[in-house]
Order: sequence, then C-alpha cells, then structure tokens
Amino acid sequence: MKRDDDVLVHEVGTRDGLQSIDTIFTTDGKMEWIRREAAAGVPQIQVGSFIPPKLLPQLADTPEVVRQSLEIPDLIVSALVPNLKGAENAMIAGVHQVGVVMSVSEAHNQSNVRRSTQDSIDDFARIVEHRNANSDYKDIVVSGGMATAFGCTISGSVPVSDVMRVAEGLVARGADRLNVSDTVGYANPGQVRALFEELYRTVGTDIPVGAHFHDTRGLGLANVFAALDAGVREFDACLGGLGGCPYAPGASGNIVTEDLVFLLESLGLKTGVDLDGLLEAREIMERQLNGEPVQGTFVNAGLPKGFVAAA
Amino acid sequence: MKRDDDVLVHEVGTRDGLQSIDTIFTTDGKMEWIRREAAAGVPQIQVGSFIPPKLLPQLADTPEVVRQSLEIPDLIVSALVPNLKGAENAMIAGVHQVGVVMSVSEAHNQSNVRRSTQDSIDDFARIVEHRNANSDYKDIVVSGGMATAFGCTISGSVPVSDVMRVAEGLVARGADRLNVSDTVGYANPGQVRALFEELYRTVGTDIPVGAHFHDTRGLGLANVFAALDAGVREFDACLGGLGGCPYAPGASGNIVTEDLVFLLESLGLKTGVDLDGLLEAREIMERQLNGEPVQGTFVNAGLPKGFVAAA
Repeated sequence: MKRDDDVLVHEVGTRDGLQSIDTIFTTDGKMEWIRREAAAGVPQIQVGSFIPPKLLPQLADTPEVVRQSLEIPDLIVSALVPNLKGAENAMIAGVHQVGVVMSVSEAHNQSNVRRSTQDSIDDFARIVEHRNANSDYKDIVVSGGMATAFGCTISGSVPVSDVMRVAEGLVARGADRLNVSDTVGYANPGQVRALFEELYRTVGTDIPVGAHFHDTRGLGLANVFAALDAGVREFDACLGGLGGCPYAPGASGNIVTEDLVFLLESLGLKTGVDLDGLLEAREIMERQLNGEPVQGTFVNAGLPKGFVAAA
Repeated sequence: MKRDDDVLVHEVGTRDGLQSIDTIFTTDGKMEWIRREAAAGVPQIQVGSFIPPKLLPQLADTPEVVRQSLEIPDLIVSALVPNLKGAENAMIAGVHQVGVVMSVSEAHNQSNVRRSTQDSIDDFARIVEHRNANSDYKDIVVSGGMATAFGCTISGSVPVSDVMRVAEGLVARGADRLNVSDTVGYANPGQVRALFEELYRTVGTDIPVGAHFHDTRGLGLANVFAALDAGVREFDACLGGLGGCPYAPGASGNIVTEDLVFLLESLGLKTGVDLDGLLEAREIMERQLNGEPVQGTFVNAGLPKGFVAAA
C-alpha cells in the first residue's frame, strides 16, 4: 500500500453522473466541464463509457469526447467498458486507462451483463491480451473494477473471500490496477478498512488500488477516511454529486468531488486540486442541468477560517 | 477509554435543533417527540436549556419539559446551562445531567458569554460546589463542555494544548464527564482521532468523554468513526438533523441521529435504539415544523439488504 501523502482524485461525474440523469449534455458542454476541471488540477477524468449508444444516449459521443480530452495537457483520460468489444473501441479511441467493470456478486453480474463473474474475469483476460497484442496500446492501463464488493442489492452480503477471489483472478490475468466499488452504497467504514487491509495482504502492495464509494447512506466520506487508513490513495468522485439525491428513495450518488478534495486537504494529503477552480467547474456543469439536483456541503460552507491546504 | 461495544446516543435536537429554528414547538409537541424517541431506546435526551426565556423563546418551557421528561422510565434527562444561575435552575428542576458549555477559544467565549474561558472554568467550579453542597443533588452529573475544540469561526485554528488545558481545568474542578464540541463544523477525522487520543492521555480513561459534531462540511460521520477509533463511546446527535441545512450558506446542523445510529449498528456497536421507532419520532418532529428543512440519508435509503444489527 502507498504510504505517501499524494492522493489521486479521479472524476467520474462525466460518466457515472451523466449516465444517471435524463439531461443529455452536448459534446461542447461536456468538454467545457472537463477542460475546467482538468485546469483545476484534477489529474484523471473518466470521460465516458464504451457501450452501445442506444443503451446510454448520454454517453453516445464518448469517442469524440475522448478525442478532445486527449488534447488536454497532462490529463489522464479514462473510460469505462463493460466487455472486450467496449475495450477494443476504447483502445481505438486512444484512452489512457480502460476501466473494466464486473460485479463480485454473481446475481448482480448476471442481472447487469447476463454472464457469470467468472465469464467476466475470462473476458478481462482477453482485454489484457488485446492490449498486449498491439504495441500501440502498450501504455494503456487496464483497471479491474469490482462492483458490489461491500454488498449487493440482490443477494445482500458479499463474502470478503469472494472479493479476494475476484481480485486474485484479475491480478493473475494482468490487471494493472484494481478498483473496489460500492455502487449500491452499502459499505460502512469498519468494513472498508478491513476489506482493503485484507486486499493488500492478498494481492500485495505493488498494484495500485482505487476506491469508488457512493454516499447513499451518508457514509461516503467516512469510508474514504477508513480506506485511507488502509493505504488507499486513489478515489473516484463526482463533481456536485451529480446523479444522486439524498431526498429521493433509492438515490445512490457518488461521493462529491469537492467535498472529497476538502477532506483530503484537511487531512494534510495532497491532491493538486484547486478548490476554487473545482467550484467553477461545478457551475459549468450545473448550468447545463434541467432541474436535476446537485449535492455537496463544501460549495456552501467554504473553507474553515485559517484553513491551510497541503503544500 | 471505553473499549466495549456499547455506545450512548444523546439526542440534542430538542435543544440544539429547536434553538436553531424559528418555529416554537408547544410543550405537548416536544413531549410527544421526546416520549417517542425515548420509547425507541434513545437513552439520554437534552430536553432544553436553562437560559433567560427572552433569549430563546423556543426553550422557555424547559422547566416543564424537564418535569414531564423525568416521568419517562429510564430516560436520562439532560439540559444545557451557560452559567451558575442556569445550573441552579436546572438542579431545582431535577435534571439528571447538567451540560455546562464554554468555548476553548477566548474570542468565541467572550463573544458568546462575555467572559474569559478561565472565568467560565471558575464558574464551572462553583457549579460543582453547588451540586456538592446539596445532598439532593448528589446524583446529578455535571458535564464540562468544550466548544470550538477543533477550530473557531473568529480566531481560526485552536491549539490542542488549549483544549488540554481547559480539559484539565474542568477535571480538576470536579467534572464528572467531558464533552468535546465542534459546533462550528471545522473538525476533520484526522484531527478528531489525534485530539481524543491526546485527551485520553491527558485526563486518563476513567472519565467519560463525549463528542458533539456538526455536519457543516459533510464530515460529521467520518468524525464519529475517527472518535470511535480513539475510544469515544458517547455522541450527541439531532433527529433529522434539525436546525441545519446543507443547501444554505453558513448552515451548521448537528449530525443526524438516525444516520449516526445506522453507522454505529453497521459497525457492530450496540446503541439499544430501534431505527423504525426513531423514524416515527422523526415524523412526529417533522410535522410540527413550518417549512424548516430536515436532513439525513437513512430515512430515504433504509437498511441495506441482509443488514444485521448488533445483537
């Protein structure tokens, strides 16, 4: 596990947020958001998903968004893919990081992508092989994402041993990093700390590990703190918590990027992100909405008096 | 520090929540809330404050609320007091616990009660003496509350050494317990864990210590998790987060009681509180409001599938 003070903030609102709302942003609108957020110092942005456009019209322009995002200096451009076909298209588009996602829970994986978790792991192996077979792709990072790692809306609790089995399977098949996801908002901080500690024992500390939390039950930032304790230094988050609403039943938004950055900087960790710039990006995002709510506390509360950010 | 699994949840919405809103609840309305929440298993409720009625009309009926609350079996009835006069009245009313509050920050204490922190500590000594001088009062717990322990809206950062000095002063003057407060919502979980660890080193682990967090910057429950790590087992909270609104500038509500209970039970800790009963109490509280917002995520999200509460 990393023990240094640098933390990577990975914006996923341009994928996870947008796919959860009705409004379809224009490509120009997305790019304005992405450019401003990158300029604020956010080092990595998940700019879309390579799935059939008819399934998610909001993300149908992903190849073009990738193309324009690749022109932004120093930005790590990532995209989500559900399978080999998506990964092939993501690599053609030239993304820096391919985020492959599957569910640790069999029932959830079957429901989501109509195959077993083992089939998804096998598909993951083919994605790595595809990357390895083309020298143009040698720098592309293939990330193995494990959803429902902390519980499942269909089958309830998910054994830690199942998470470890999937993690070992992904590492054995060449994953460059792992991402552990609580997309259903079930995780609590005690569970989070224990699971990541077990994960580092299982796969070692050389492979980067990220965490993806939702704030469904108000524990998102507590879970971040617990994951930091275990050594995690990469976090997904969503500007303005786009896509979630705590006042609607079943809401399940990502943790809020600007609140995450505030937490991390409060703890003396370094994100490289300028909070004022982040709020400007939030405004750019927010004015493209059609009534969809945004979340977050930092936007209203601001910095404590005398606050000193990490140098 | 306590290392067992029992955690005391102290409802303060009937004081901290009500004093932060315009609506004035009737005595009957407060009692309906208090009775339902006590029936749900909340062991201790701060039912009011002994300050001049003209300063806080919302709490002018505190003596009568105390009287009726004392009839509820097994409920620990607490009240806040700003000074000796308030403590005398609280003891006449028969409360089980007197919460004396002062600010560690000199500037904040001067602004709030127009005296130095040292003067407040001396006043605290007189409150303990007053309790000790009357055998009828021998079972009354006198709690020393330290506000702005994590930072101050006037003077910015507050040195940990100042908190320790006040804590030692209160213990030396006979405090039965300490309460460490972040009423301004400045605390972060790293700071919280370090401060409570230092506090236990300073005053020992025999004296009970409670924590009072606000969720101004979304870190309230993360701070609870950090305080638990340090050994804290008593927390103030406010049903429905009454009195705070994350969507209004300067909002500064307490952490939400039902979200706190959910966090604690998720961690395998025992609160003795029935979450369904708590939501019924919340409804009783909520229907007495005149448009003031309530907060919280548990009320909408509910329990995760397969959730098992602490036995």
